[in-house]
Amino acid sequence: MDERIHEHAEVLVDWSARIEAGDDVVLSVDEGAHDLAVAVAEKLGERGANLVATYDAGELRRAYLRAHDDEFEVDPEFELALYENADAVLSLGGTRNTTAAADVPGERRQEYSTARQGVREARLSTDWVSTLHPTRAYAQQAGMAYEEYQDFVYDAVLRDWGSLADEMAKMKSILDEGSEVRLVSGGTDLTMSIEGRTAVNSAASVAYDSHNLPSGEVFTAPYDPEGEVVFDVPMTIQDRRVRNVRLTFEDGEVVDYSAETGEDALDDVFETDAGARRLGELGIGMNRGIDRFTDNILFDEKMGDTVHLAVGRAYDACLPEGESGNDSAVHVDMITDVSEESRLEVDGEVVQRNGTFRFEDGFEG
Amino acid sequence: MDERIHEHAEVLVDWSARIEAGDDVVLSVDEGAHDLAVAVAEKLGERGANLVATYDAGELRRAYLRAHDDEFEVDPEFELALYENADAVLSLGGTRNTTAAADVPGERRQEYSTARQGVREARLSTDWVSTLHPTRAYAQQAGMAYEEYQDFVYDAVLRDWGSLADEMAKMKSILDEGSEVRLVSGGTDLTMSIEGRTAVNSAASVAYDSHNLPSGEVFTAPYDPEGEVVFDVPMTIQDRRVRNVRLTFEDGEVVDYSAETGEDALDDVFETDAGARRLGELGIGMNRGIDRFTDNILFDEKMGDTVHLAVGRAYDACLPEGESGNDSAVHVDMITDVSEESRLEVDGEVVQRNGTFRFEDGFEG
Repeated sequence: MDERIHEHAEVLVDWSARIEAGDDVVLSVDEGAHDLAVAVAEKLGERGANLVATYDAGELRRAYLRAHDDEFEVDPEFELALYENADAVLSLGGTRNTTAAADVPGERRQEYSTARQGVREARLSTDWVSTLHPTRAYAQQAGMAYEEYQDFVYDAVLRDWGSLADEMAKMKSILDEGSEVRLVSGGTDLTMSIEGRTAVNSAASVAYDSHNLPSGEVFTAPYDPEGEVVFDVPMTIQDRRVRNVRLTFEDGEVVDYSAETGEDALDDVFETDAGARRLGELGIGMNRGIDRFTDNILFDEKMGDTVHLAVGRAYDACLPEGESGNDSAVHVDMITDVSEESRLEVDGEVVQRNGTFRFEDGFEG
Repeated sequence: MDERIHEHAEVLVDWSARIEAGDDVVLSVDEGAHDLAVAVAEKLGERGANLVATYDAGELRRAYLRAHDDEFEVDPEFELALYENADAVLSLGGTRNTTAAADVPGERRQEYSTARQGVREARLSTDWVSTLHPTRAYAQQAGMAYEEYQDFVYDAVLRDWGSLADEMAKMKSILDEGSEVRLVSGGTDLTMSIEGRTAVNSAASVAYDSHNLPSGEVFTAPYDPEGEVVFDVPMTIQDRRVRNVRLTFEDGEVVDYSAETGEDALDDVFETDAGARRLGELGIGMNRGIDRFTDNILFDEKMGDTVHLAVGRAYDACLPEGESGNDSAVHVDMITDVSEESRLEVDGEVVQRNGTFRFEDGFEG
């Protein structure tokens, strides 16, 4: 087995999920994630954790959802009991076909998801972490050779997370102390308020309120956006390819939108509910181990030299205790490349220009 | 997908496990059982059952057990809660290496198994069914080509179970009404009591107290054996190959034993506890869809023209309500070929001669 798979497992179990002896760990295994699952099982054994592995293959979900034409039971007791009693859920993506469930009607997915809200909340209240084992299907989605893609994934995952966390803490301080953010780049000129909001130093560990491996972004929950923004990084929204999205905000809401490709996906998003037209997230990619777009949000949104915004639901971790932010059934991330002719300002001061942060060498204020 | 996989799934869900709308079903999926798992997920969706799939690959268990060098927690709450709330557990064997866990020390397995007795009991108190998806590894163990093995499996599984159940009911009546069984064949001449015991018509359905697919045997819990028995069908006991076992019973207990190959496996069995030296089961194979030995007990013991005995634990289903039979930590099946120069007598009357039953054409009393 590739030694990097063992290293990946160690980062996941120790740095990301902070597993300790006696922890009840659900390991969710996708069809092609077997090798990583074996390496993680070994680490869980070493740590003295308890293990239940679930099998979460897209083809199983597809077959089940398409065949089930009755009402879904709300939060089946046996599934709820598993997650309510679990300390951590480690999800290992590893599909053999990124469009394995493409022909499941959206309505069916929605009904299933709605019926299992309690199960989802139980999962999210554990120390959950999502990661990905490189497969040929992901390589294909990225337009890369398989070995090339493996190198890409391990460069992103096997980092010195402690020192990246220290670096990201600087950005977090700037956002925590700031009141207004302005993003200027290409067709983009957008201002938004962040007053009273707390940024998350997303350092790929539950200890940082961060649940993705890799991570490497600092994000907060902005509000009252005004202006225009263009997202020039190709992406997939609700299984549809979308390119060059342009949004116009007035009085904090999307009042106009367009896309060169996939505008109908945006129609669906903005029709969901009122919250879908407001901002849920401003994220600043800081993982320089990710050096290209691979049409996978787990990686793309953490890439250095990018900024992303999400319309829809805001994360509680960014809000004052007990306060709730923008609410919506959707959370759709869209990314913009800020490597050239771009600047990010906080309270009128430039904190990132052409991808370089104020606290980095080569910054030109 | 091979149409027989869908038929297999249908037999499993409808005939074997009797799944109904709203049932909470745990689907245990081995590494190579993906295709059958997809077909079963579809059937579960059609029936309106709820589904949690677990991943039970030998390589995961091996990695976990070898790495875990501390005491195992007794019945971890999250795992117990899953099975205590489940209505059915469908186990799909499908290994890619029948010796995937060969280097796990026996002591480690034993400790793990002992610590999870409550979990095991919770699983066994559901409507559980074990079956197998044909893989190249099983084909290799059987010494067969892959396609040849697939045909073998589906011939054994895709039967008219209702009519086989009717046929087996005749054998069950004979055993239920009988007091003493005598088996004569080659070096075998063994008598045993079955007075007061109830035979199980094992027709591959929970409706018949039968939990294997395929099944096709009638079994009971004999006691007070006297005489000699030779088991001439090759088998694997505790991961070791064993051939031509000979047992001598006096006053109901094994007083002498030998084997041409693997006698040390028998040493381990008989040293386990006192119950290991007494009989736990007499089974009569009646599935004529199984026409050869494949070194897999799921199939071998159900083959027509065979009789098997197990030393160790007896099944409660064969005993009067509230009474317990032979108790032991082991239950080891051993098979003898009765196709030639053999007879099975119940209370002095021949009920099977050279493989042919009294109620079949061609029987020669």
